[in-house]
Amino acid sequence: MDYQRVFSQAIDRLHAEGRYRVFIDILRNKGMFPNARCFHGHNGPKPITVWCSNDYLAMGQHPKVIAAMEEALHDVGAGSGGTRNIGGNTHYHIDLEAELADLHGKQGALLFTSGYVSNEATLSTLAKVLPGCIIFSDELNHASMIAGIRNSGCEKHVFRHNDLAHLEELLASVPAEAPKLIAFESVYSMDGDVAPIAAICDLADRYNALTYLDEVHAVGMYGAHGGGISERDGVAERITIIEGTLGKAFGVMGGYIAADRTVIDVIRSYAPGFIFTTSLSPVLVAGVLASVRHLKQSSAEREGQQAAATMLKRLFAEAGLPVMPSTTHIVPLRVGDPVKAKTISDILLAEYGVYVQPINYPTVPRGTERLRFTPGPSHSVEMMEELTRALVEIWDRLDLRLAA
Amino acid sequence: MDYQRVFSQAIDRLHAEGRYRVFIDILRNKGMFPNARCFHGHNGPKPITVWCSNDYLAMGQHPKVIAAMEEALHDVGAGSGGTRNIGGNTHYHIDLEAELADLHGKQGALLFTSGYVSNEATLSTLAKVLPGCIIFSDELNHASMIAGIRNSGCEKHVFRHNDLAHLEELLASVPAEAPKLIAFESVYSMDGDVAPIAAICDLADRYNALTYLDEVHAVGMYGAHGGGISERDGVAERITIIEGTLGKAFGVMGGYIAADRTVIDVIRSYAPGFIFTTSLSPVLVAGVLASVRHLKQSSAEREGQQAAATMLKRLFAEAGLPVMPSTTHIVPLRVGDPVKAKTISDILLAEYGVYVQPINYPTVPRGTERLRFTPGPSHSVEMMEELTRALVEIWDRLDLRLAA
Repeated sequence: MDYQRVFSQAIDRLHAEGRYRVFIDILRNKGMFPNARCFHGHNGPKPITVWCSNDYLAMGQHPKVIAAMEEALHDVGAGSGGTRNIGGNTHYHIDLEAELADLHGKQGALLFTSGYVSNEATLSTLAKVLPGCIIFSDELNHASMIAGIRNSGCEKHVFRHNDLAHLEELLASVPAEAPKLIAFESVYSMDGDVAPIAAICDLADRYNALTYLDEVHAVGMYGAHGGGISERDGVAERITIIEGTLGKAFGVMGGYIAADRTVIDVIRSYAPGFIFTTSLSPVLVAGVLASVRHLKQSSAEREGQQAAATMLKRLFAEAGLPVMPSTTHIVPLRVGDPVKAKTISDILLAEYGVYVQPINYPTVPRGTERLRFTPGPSHSVEMMEELTRALVEIWDRLDLRLAA
Repeated sequence: MDYQRVFSQAIDRLHAEGRYRVFIDILRNKGMFPNARCFHGHNGPKPITVWCSNDYLAMGQHPKVIAAMEEALHDVGAGSGGTRNIGGNTHYHIDLEAELADLHGKQGALLFTSGYVSNEATLSTLAKVLPGCIIFSDELNHASMIAGIRNSGCEKHVFRHNDLAHLEELLASVPAEAPKLIAFESVYSMDGDVAPIAAICDLADRYNALTYLDEVHAVGMYGAHGGGISERDGVAERITIIEGTLGKAFGVMGGYIAADRTVIDVIRSYAPGFIFTTSLSPVLVAGVLASVRHLKQSSAEREGQQAAATMLKRLFAEAGLPVMPSTTHIVPLRVGDPVKAKTISDILLAEYGVYVQPINYPTVPRGTERLRFTPGPSHSVEMMEELTRALVEIWDRLDLRLAA
């Protein structure tokens, strides 16, 4: 057994497909997002504009967030020092869980070290607590939900993306008495489309299924208080478990679920991915607490983001660029080839100081490779016009097709 | 299907066994560890001494760590804003990976959001890249390693704890040509004993197996530079992958692996738990960087911890308390019953201002329930004498047996 050869071959396969990933080395500039310094392939840092951050509302630089983190750092120190059960349960964690439960109108909430872990741990544990559970999963669900479902070991049915008829067909095909769980997202982050939540809840009622809704690309950004698409659509109370992240619109790091008291207690008590891990640093938790509280009161960031997204989609469309049909803040440009997507991204960074990452398989299906822009309240009209001009020049240079 | 009933029954089972977990609500006091404020079951915060923190060397309050985090917070903001591949790769991450690779004498290192995730993601991915891989796992391995091994779906053989003869018997029982991986820990955190690393490497050589060593309870604390037991024993170069945490002795949060360049590249490129998650906040990474650099140069914290552990074990033994045979900084007192362990812990907190969590199943096997003390350089001799007196009083009050 030649281990080195096997490992090298695994890497060679990525190079051969043009999807070997090179991480771009940057430092963002607090107070000046989306500006950043880039250390990639240059002598010394070079100024760039970041167009692919998931710090969607620039809350990662909000003065209230920074002040709260600084205060916690000086009050209680760097890390929590333990798991939630053994020394790592702080007053900040408890306050934030109460705040998140309130955000979604639920009885309780539970923090995880990341959104990935909250999906993996909750889905794999839920299914184990419900023997014979059958999971119905949207085909475009995030890798972390797929991991949780696979690790649960239970029977799984994948329904076509946002396809209610197909979901109903699958629900009707299993025994009425079997425990069932429908797992889906509100905003699908690579396409920017939205699930028909109310209609999925109708099906869940009809077939007595639990519902699990991933709102990571919606919390903070939709609904009058940032409760996500489920708040905007007035259906939060119909969802069994709402899952969210603290690392995107809230600008910091971590993940959570919100649900009724008993469900929270079950996951808290049985999920290895929750039990056996050092809890979130209280410094992070303090920052998130400030962020969530601010976005509950203030809609200016949400409105700024929606205005920027609408403007950028219009500019792209008017220039004939292949903008994909997103109904949210996410603006994807279809390229359809991993090598071309990377070439465009490389030229943008090297020649225009624009940082947008190519999105290749396995993040999106092969043949749908794209550039994914996330304009926010801090991206100015001038930045958007400059970006559009740069893209048109590159499209032209690479003989890519623009719409008439 | 009555979901509520099933969930309630799951919680009732924990109460019936006396192992329902109540999280103790505390805030540590930066600059005064192990002192903390306890919000649990009292009016207002009450001062306590923490005896069960995994911030083993109190690096979570070290001035260099706090200063580095404050600087990063003001330079680049709260969160990273993305995955490592999409906008979340900062200069701090790259510097820390280089520092950790150097700490273990390896070509590369890779950061994860937690030690749990580093174990789960690496083990599950490694085994998938090596078709037909067979994993040999110590029976006391941590839940996160077990999760990674189970999720890999490969053939697994569990060897008796630290039992070389049993491990060899199992290695000899499988085809010589099959890819093999031996997964084990250096310091087992609930018993405080240490693996015979060199002898396990001898077996790995003989049977052409890879080795995976979890050093989460050793990095920062053993070896001249804090490289763990593998540094202390001079065997780091013989280990294929060393895994560690940033949330215990380094005092902050996160996890990592160190290995040769190709292995790191494979995990970086194929592990969903690495790829699809927001990267560590640069604020945390900056703090860890300061912590790792400090502990590479300074042995005062390690020496202080070892002196405190030796002293506490001696005081417990002299008082006839059932201290378990640990050869490390971990000082477990055997109770053997979940309800009694919780009672002792409750009395210590309510009457003596001592916080030590009872350790019950599933963290340790049933019948071996214990209190686990982690004395560090900040615990004074007076604190230890006071603790010993409190325990003797409680042992007496509950009619528990003291040794003659």
